[in-house]
Amino acid sequence: MIIELVNTGTELLLGQIVNTNAPFLAARLNELGFSVLYQTTVGDNRDRMKNVLQTALERANIVITSGGLGPTQGDITKEVTASLLNKPMYLHEDSATQIQRFFDERRLCMTNNNLRQAMMPEGAQIIKNTCGTAPGVIVEEENSGKIIINLPGPPHELAEMFEKSIVPYLAERFGLQGAIVSRVLRTYGLGESALEERIKQYISNQSNPTLALLARSGEIHVRITARAASKAESMQLINELEGKIHPLLDEYVFGIDEETMEKSVGNLLLSRKLTIALAESCTGGLVTSRITDVPGSSQYLVGSIVCYSNAVKTLQVGVPAEIIAAKGAVSQETAECMAQGIKEKFQTGIGVGITGIAGPDGATADKPVGLVYIAIDGLAGKVCYEHYFNGTRADIKHRTALAALNHVRHYLLTI
Amino acid sequence: MIIELVNTGTELLLGQIVNTNAPFLAARLNELGFSVLYQTTVGDNRDRMKNVLQTALERANIVITSGGLGPTQGDITKEVTASLLNKPMYLHEDSATQIQRFFDERRLCMTNNNLRQAMMPEGAQIIKNTCGTAPGVIVEEENSGKIIINLPGPPHELAEMFEKSIVPYLAERFGLQGAIVSRVLRTYGLGESALEERIKQYISNQSNPTLALLARSGEIHVRITARAASKAESMQLINELEGKIHPLLDEYVFGIDEETMEKSVGNLLLSRKLTIALAESCTGGLVTSRITDVPGSSQYLVGSIVCYSNAVKTLQVGVPAEIIAAKGAVSQETAECMAQGIKEKFQTGIGVGITGIAGPDGATADKPVGLVYIAIDGLAGKVCYEHYFNGTRADIKHRTALAALNHVRHYLLTI
Repeated sequence: MIIELVNTGTELLLGQIVNTNAPFLAARLNELGFSVLYQTTVGDNRDRMKNVLQTALERANIVITSGGLGPTQGDITKEVTASLLNKPMYLHEDSATQIQRFFDERRLCMTNNNLRQAMMPEGAQIIKNTCGTAPGVIVEEENSGKIIINLPGPPHELAEMFEKSIVPYLAERFGLQGAIVSRVLRTYGLGESALEERIKQYISNQSNPTLALLARSGEIHVRITARAASKAESMQLINELEGKIHPLLDEYVFGIDEETMEKSVGNLLLSRKLTIALAESCTGGLVTSRITDVPGSSQYLVGSIVCYSNAVKTLQVGVPAEIIAAKGAVSQETAECMAQGIKEKFQTGIGVGITGIAGPDGATADKPVGLVYIAIDGLAGKVCYEHYFNGTRADIKHRTALAALNHVRHYLLTI
Repeated sequence: MIIELVNTGTELLLGQIVNTNAPFLAARLNELGFSVLYQTTVGDNRDRMKNVLQTALERANIVITSGGLGPTQGDITKEVTASLLNKPMYLHEDSATQIQRFFDERRLCMTNNNLRQAMMPEGAQIIKNTCGTAPGVIVEEENSGKIIINLPGPPHELAEMFEKSIVPYLAERFGLQGAIVSRVLRTYGLGESALEERIKQYISNQSNPTLALLARSGEIHVRITARAASKAESMQLINELEGKIHPLLDEYVFGIDEETMEKSVGNLLLSRKLTIALAESCTGGLVTSRITDVPGSSQYLVGSIVCYSNAVKTLQVGVPAEIIAAKGAVSQETAECMAQGIKEKFQTGIGVGITGIAGPDGATADKPVGLVYIAIDGLAGKVCYEHYFNGTRADIKHRTALAALNHVRHYLLTI
């Protein structure tokens, strides 16, 4: 069954709001086994909306609209739906009563235009709105069996109506069978094309499970999606394919599904019973902040020092002033002293030192913006990595944080 | 001129990511005087993408696509565009060189499939990508004069390319007349309805300039947009309206246009010639990281200590162990000692102490998740604020960071 989502509302085409209804519906419908192949946005204009619905009805079996069910003159989705399917509109008494009650309960005065919301296309199924005034509508075209579903625009009303009424309707109407399950392998460190190169035999011959690569702010996610008669069978299919591609991606895979890089580092620290402390310069506390995004991180994060000035590097983290004078604040030697200094000062198992030039100023003849040193000190000795990152100041901070967490992850894997 | 936005990418139709490119482009294009009447999303499938582009080209003068310019086999937008307009593809040498250089500069090895990104439709204008590898493309259909513009999918690459290259192209090609200018007053601390109440007379009677309220992760932005024959005239209209509403919003306005809260704090520190240091517990370094998002922040940020453990609070920041024992690590007294301790240790003009319960664990009978104390010590004495924030761990960190920066801003305004 092919579905097209049609989101109505001029505010969407003015860029005033971000469309979160489409991804919500798309994700849920895919899980239920439907194929969402198109999504279209159109404003509150009768002709254009009718044309868009007409096109949608030609290329999909089910069209789900959101928006335009309210009481104002601009709310025309039901009317346009009815007109397209040649159904007259009538006043649905139950809905009118419901709407009146909604206002009474809130001690509000109902204005007459609210009754527009109780006008319905003939023969439609009316869907109660349990957290707003606008009911939803399901209309079937007799000959083709094609269906238009009108849902309200406010995201919480739409979500509630979808879960409570539309999912049961679809399940009953189409006897949903089978289960779709996805698993995401989160990777870091391989470019998109290098990664694709490694698993290309599985990408070009995919059918079920399917494989998709998604670049997500420095990470690349490999999504495996399987469809089978039961959840267990889908899982089995996923396990088989993952068993083949995971070894090809090897240590680049840092997490599964919702396991972030900082979560992965946290789990390794917990399993190794190690604590960590960081001395951050160019990242300004970002790496520590990410580590503390994980609930329970106080079990392994002792603390950090953001040593933005050289004085703090020297006085608080114990980097010898001579090292900074001779090698520079952005150097392998300084990063290593920072890692060692913070480890000793905070008495942790692992110490991390990060120094670099986040830009846009601060570059010198031999040290460009984006040059970063990341050092780790601990049981397995001292290591230091040199990077050249590009992008804005924010990009460089973000890339440095991700690289630093990944270096810590690799370091912990060797312990 | 009618524009249709076509966003490509199966991940959009799976609901895996929210489409932020469409609202960005829609908002900017509307400001420039174009009418965005349709937005369509389609997956990485040749036939469906071609049909969608065909439909778009029939109902719009300009079609702007995003996504599908990368190096993988799923990246087909340029090919489909070329095929629709009957243009053969060729290897664009300059782009190939640029891409090779991109890899060289980052000391990375380029794989062959990256050259797919240098394959271009014949006769197309090639648009440089200044923050990624995939160039953009502008192709005109000779007979109809209709235009397809292919932009990359990553939002920062798309935004950069749009501002740097597409806006000038559109301005030259269509001789944009009149000037649309916007100004954003960024506010913090007033709810949306309270804010609307204060300026409602200007909201209900708007025409030119227009006024829009936009809630953006804890801030509310008031956007004033004016259209006139020249930029100077538009600015004049904006200045007049801002002169009326700014006093009504008063100290809630922390910045204009791109002036973030951390930028505003940085400017105040510079103007007062004061330095700052922070002792962060529940925010884990997030506030310091935000402060260092501002270029040149090393002029006033000396450094910070993330004191996640009580030992670090006591040994490194100088919070007396008795205070923590008697009042708790999350208390006004501890926050104040943190602010004073870090100020003295790092010898700054301003010291900030932040302690709270980010959750989901850590609540006690009298201290719920979301309880946060923010203390400031400096020339104007010691102050401390108690907050009860709600939401997830990430929400609480974010809200605390924003509140802390705003408290520092107010503190600096009194000096």
